[in-house]
Amino acid sequence: MPDGWPPGPAGVESFCRLLLDACVGHASAVKANLAFFEAWGSQGLAVLERVRAALPSDLPFIADAKRGDIRSTSARHSVALFDSLGADAVTVSPYLGGAAIEPLLERADRFAYVLCRTSDPGSGELQDLAVTARPDGEEVPIPLYLRVSRRAAAWDAGRGTVGLVVGATGPAELTLVRQNAPGLAFLVPGIGRQGGDVGATLDSGPARDGPAARRPGGGLLVNLSRSISRAAVGAADPAKALEEVARSWAARLRV
Amino acid sequence: MPDGWPPGPAGVESFCRLLLDACVGHASAVKANLAFFEAWGSQGLAVLERVRAALPSDLPFIADAKRGDIRSTSARHSVALFDSLGADAVTVSPYLGGAAIEPLLERADRFAYVLCRTSDPGSGELQDLAVTARPDGEEVPIPLYLRVSRRAAAWDAGRGTVGLVVGATGPAELTLVRQNAPGLAFLVPGIGRQGGDVGATLDSGPARDGPAARRPGGGLLVNLSRSISRAAVGAADPAKALEEVARSWAARLRV
Repeated sequence: MPDGWPPGPAGVESFCRLLLDACVGHASAVKANLAFFEAWGSQGLAVLERVRAALPSDLPFIADAKRGDIRSTSARHSVALFDSLGADAVTVSPYLGGAAIEPLLERADRFAYVLCRTSDPGSGELQDLAVTARPDGEEVPIPLYLRVSRRAAAWDAGRGTVGLVVGATGPAELTLVRQNAPGLAFLVPGIGRQGGDVGATLDSGPARDGPAARRPGGGLLVNLSRSISRAAVGAADPAKALEEVARSWAARLRV
Repeated sequence: MPDGWPPGPAGVESFCRLLLDACVGHASAVKANLAFFEAWGSQGLAVLERVRAALPSDLPFIADAKRGDIRSTSARHSVALFDSLGADAVTVSPYLGGAAIEPLLERADRFAYVLCRTSDPGSGELQDLAVTARPDGEEVPIPLYLRVSRRAAAWDAGRGTVGLVVGATGPAELTLVRQNAPGLAFLVPGIGRQGGDVGATLDSGPARDGPAARRPGGGLLVNLSRSISRAAVGAADPAKALEEVARSWAARLRV
C-alpha cells in the first residue's frame, strides 16, 4: 500500500481494484501475497476473495501463501487455496518433504511453486548449507537449495504441476538451479525494488525441456510488486502512473 | 470434525465450542490449525476469530500456521497472527533463515515454535539430510533438523521467545534435538492417533536449562488433536466423552 491510501480493509480493496484495473492488461498472471490480506483478519481475506473473483477468468491467479504442513493439513490447504480462494497456483515450502505437500502438487489443473532459493539477505542460512544424503562422504555435497530443485523435479515426475521459486537477487544461483532442474517453470521475485538481475533472469529463467519449455517464455514468471505499486505514490493520476509502469515492465520482460 | 457433524463453518464453530467447553479445564494451552478454518475461506477465519475471543484470557493460544516468508512479509504475519488473531504463540518454518522470520521471534510477550523434526512419514526427505556449513569436509556433518535446532537456539539468543516443533513419532530424534538445544521449549505433536511415544516425550521433552526449564513441565507442550476430538464420534453424550478423554490425557501427561 502506498502512503496516503486509507489504512484498513476498505483501503486495501480500493487500491487493489485500482492497481488491477490499471495493470492486468500487461500481466501474464496475478500473484497475491496472502499475509498482506490476513493482517486484516477475516475481513482482509474477504477482500482478497472479492478481488480474486473480479479478475478475468483467463488470467492465472497465484496464491502466494508459502504453505507447508503434514499431509492431512496440506489436503485442507488445497481446499483453502485452490477451491475456496480459486487459485490456479500456490507457493509452498519444501521443509516437510514431498509426500507431505503432495495434496498441493497432485491436481492436474493446478500448479505449485516450491520455495527453492529466496531473494532476501540471509536466505542462505539454511538454503546454502552443503548437504548429502550419504554422510559417509561418498556423494559430493551440494547446496540444500539445489537438492530442493532436484527433489522438486522428482516430485513433479513429469506431471507438469510443480515449479520453483528462485529469487532474481542470486543470478549465479538462478543459473545453477536451471542446470539442476531444466524442465521446471520458475517464479522469480526480487526484480525491481529488491535489486534483482533482469538479464540473468531472462537468460536462465525459461525452462529448457519438458512441458514448461513449450509454454510462452519457457514458463518463466517474473513477479513485480512494489516496483509497480509505488508508482501510485504522489502521482497526480495514480491509475495512469500504474498503467505506465506496468506497460514499461511488460515491454522489458516479455520474451 | 467427527463424522455426522454438519459440514461448513457453522458446524465447525459449534463443534469447536463443544470441544473447548469440555476440554479447556484440562489443557495447558489451545492450538488451532489454521488450515482447517481457512478451508472455509473468510467465513472460516471469522469462526476462528470468534472461537479464539471466547477462550479464557489466561489460557495460551497457539496459531498453528507454519508461516515463513521474507522479512517484509513476516512483519505482516506478525500482525495477522499476534495482533489480529490474538495468538500468544505461532508455528513457523525455518527454510528462509532467522533474519527473515525475526518479526515473529522478536516480541518479548509472544512466542514462536520453529519447525524442526516433523511427525509424518517422509519428513526426513530434507530434514534428515547430512549438512555442513563447510563443504571442504572439515566440519562433521549433522542432520539438517539438528542444524535447525542449533540455529533456532541462536535465533532465540536467550530472549526466551523461540521453541521447536519436534514430533513424538521420532523418539530418538527427540532425544538428539534436546541434546542440541537444551534450553528451548518443545511443542510435540504426534502423540495419540499418530502413534508417538509418550514415555520418550516426557523423558526428553522438558527443557534442561534457561527460562524454559523453569516453566511448568520444562516448557513442554504435548499437542493432542484427533485423539481427543474423535471421542465425540458416536458418543451418546459427546461433551461428556470429550471431557473424559481430555481428563485422561491430562493425567497421563502432566509432569
